[in-house]
Amino acid sequence: MKNFRYFNPVCIYFGKGVLSRLGKEVSKLGKKALFVYGMGSIKRTGLYDRVVEQLKEAGVEFVEHGGVKPNPVLSHTREGVEKAKKENVDVILAVGGGSVIDEAKAIAAGAKADCDVWDFFEFKAIVKDALPIVTVLTISGTGSEMNAGLVITNEEKKAKFGFRAEPLYPKVSFLDPTLTFTVPPDQTAYGAVDAFTHVSEVYCNCDVNHDLPKGIMESIMKTIVKWAPVAVKEPENYEARAELMWASSLALCGITWCGVGDLTLPAHMIEHSLSALYDVAHGAGLAIVTPGWMKYMREARKEQLEAFAKGVFGVEGIDEGIESFERWLKELNCPTRLSDIGVKSSDIPEIAENAYQLSVAWGMSDFYTVEVIKEILNLCA
Amino acid sequence: MKNFRYFNPVCIYFGKGVLSRLGKEVSKLGKKALFVYGMGSIKRTGLYDRVVEQLKEAGVEFVEHGGVKPNPVLSHTREGVEKAKKENVDVILAVGGGSVIDEAKAIAAGAKADCDVWDFFEFKAIVKDALPIVTVLTISGTGSEMNAGLVITNEEKKAKFGFRAEPLYPKVSFLDPTLTFTVPPDQTAYGAVDAFTHVSEVYCNCDVNHDLPKGIMESIMKTIVKWAPVAVKEPENYEARAELMWASSLALCGITWCGVGDLTLPAHMIEHSLSALYDVAHGAGLAIVTPGWMKYMREARKEQLEAFAKGVFGVEGIDEGIESFERWLKELNCPTRLSDIGVKSSDIPEIAENAYQLSVAWGMSDFYTVEVIKEILNLCA
Repeated sequence: MKNFRYFNPVCIYFGKGVLSRLGKEVSKLGKKALFVYGMGSIKRTGLYDRVVEQLKEAGVEFVEHGGVKPNPVLSHTREGVEKAKKENVDVILAVGGGSVIDEAKAIAAGAKADCDVWDFFEFKAIVKDALPIVTVLTISGTGSEMNAGLVITNEEKKAKFGFRAEPLYPKVSFLDPTLTFTVPPDQTAYGAVDAFTHVSEVYCNCDVNHDLPKGIMESIMKTIVKWAPVAVKEPENYEARAELMWASSLALCGITWCGVGDLTLPAHMIEHSLSALYDVAHGAGLAIVTPGWMKYMREARKEQLEAFAKGVFGVEGIDEGIESFERWLKELNCPTRLSDIGVKSSDIPEIAENAYQLSVAWGMSDFYTVEVIKEILNLCA
Repeated sequence: MKNFRYFNPVCIYFGKGVLSRLGKEVSKLGKKALFVYGMGSIKRTGLYDRVVEQLKEAGVEFVEHGGVKPNPVLSHTREGVEKAKKENVDVILAVGGGSVIDEAKAIAAGAKADCDVWDFFEFKAIVKDALPIVTVLTISGTGSEMNAGLVITNEEKKAKFGFRAEPLYPKVSFLDPTLTFTVPPDQTAYGAVDAFTHVSEVYCNCDVNHDLPKGIMESIMKTIVKWAPVAVKEPENYEARAELMWASSLALCGITWCGVGDLTLPAHMIEHSLSALYDVAHGAGLAIVTPGWMKYMREARKEQLEAFAKGVFGVEGIDEGIESFERWLKELNCPTRLSDIGVKSSDIPEIAENAYQLSVAWGMSDFYTVEVIKEILNLCA
């Protein structure tokens, strides 16, 4: 096993009805909250009212910051930072999916900083402090509810950048699987693919010869493979929603790569450019890029891809493994080729140039040059 | 999946050489430490000198509290509390196995309390605050380095009691597998059995029909089954020591029972009396009690024991599973019968009476009556 540091102080309340503790937990952290949410689905489902009731009962004042976009943008984040500063809030409450939680994290950092919040994404400044964050998760997938990472899109620069900082671990995250019953089939699938690739990318890039982390990673991936199609077909299947929710949280909480190497996400890196440049969901983009990445790496990651085939899909051989993976993606109605989302081969150079920026920012540019990224994208065409 | 709360804020530094950060981490938590250790093996191995060097380099003053016994006792714990109070230390540094860490936790709690430290064990008082704890682990097994629980023996009352309290999570734990190279074969085996049963007891007592927690539990158990015999035979096999160390920490860190029910440890409960009354190592006692407990529960825990046979040992059927488990225990040179440690059938009533006290304290006495405990022990004879 390789050396590692593991630290994850997020307190998780999981299960049906856990929201009844929300007010109490928020009130432990402050008297005035910035209530961050998305495009209004929480108003349609009644969750908004339940949250407001919890805050009122606990005597927590709040200011609203709704309208977070599915790929959260810098301009709206900056507005949130301004609001948090002006209103002097002392806790950030994020109610939504990974996008809402990510923007909430950026606001929590920005509210305690003198610099512009984008400086953190370009590694010009470091997050030393942040407002405490509480999350109520409504879509399984990103794992943001149980980690210290975030991704924001700078619209002007057309850059989708991310970073992590320990002050950004949520203090408490509420995971009630019933809150995901209303997530539509496509978003359910994309979330599952996102979570799956958080593990498969680590598995396929690291030293897979260590039983315990290998076993944990395979358990998470097999759980997602089994239950995602069920949740897509039966949106109110509690067990499916619950297994997916916990698997997604564990997938990026840090436990998977303990002992096998560092978190490495090359397919994510390339996908970020796809969804920065085109109107495509992150999970859909991953369904396209990840199999292509695997094909490109079939020699360089031979051992890992063979283990992946056997350990996750129970088949022998790299090609059989990738085929099983693609069959599963299609079962989930995910696009698996760039052409499925209307991206042409002639668009590839621009995507590759964009992705290379992130390759540099993430310190992966020694291997992931523009040329290599182009070749990978060609395998996704 | 069942509802759960998960929270584990311990920061783990894992791997060869991580001790080079010890001084720095301790100094973040205080200027004066109580340095708790056991019967002196750390002086023979040179670890004592390395720890002292780290503390001196970081400018941390320290007071020593050596002599913690393998089953740590209340009288010595009380001395530690007195010392911590008198010397006004602000951090507890535990260097040793689970016993040392457990006593360190009791001291950390006692040093901040007005009541007698034993009151916590009898649930007459609740730990609201504690001195921060740093641990350096030298024996894999109890998992104390990554949880908030502890067990202490009250010699006068012949009671081995335990409890958990969140202020007792270590702040930082250093897990260097090379520090366990010198652990003798028997202690290596007993530690592995302890860790294994932390998972198998949960697995066999809970609702095992949930893929993700089931998969995680099986991964931990299979890792221990594979690597414990290797570590016993090849004490300096790094991979074996590393896999065992991380498996032992995860085994009782709380992640295993997320979604399947509460932590339930009936075999541990009965074993505590065995090692309170006789000079037997905890892991050796578990190797005797756990298969007996499984035999007693073969009907009541049919589904779980069938899954255990298949999921951990790859065999079909309850009896085959228990036999495989016993074969593994014998391969580790563990005793598997009370007679192996010189306990006679006529001693069983006294052990059962003693265990019943803990059954009451742990809220398990509805099922685990004196009669039931006797019957289980008869199956261990």
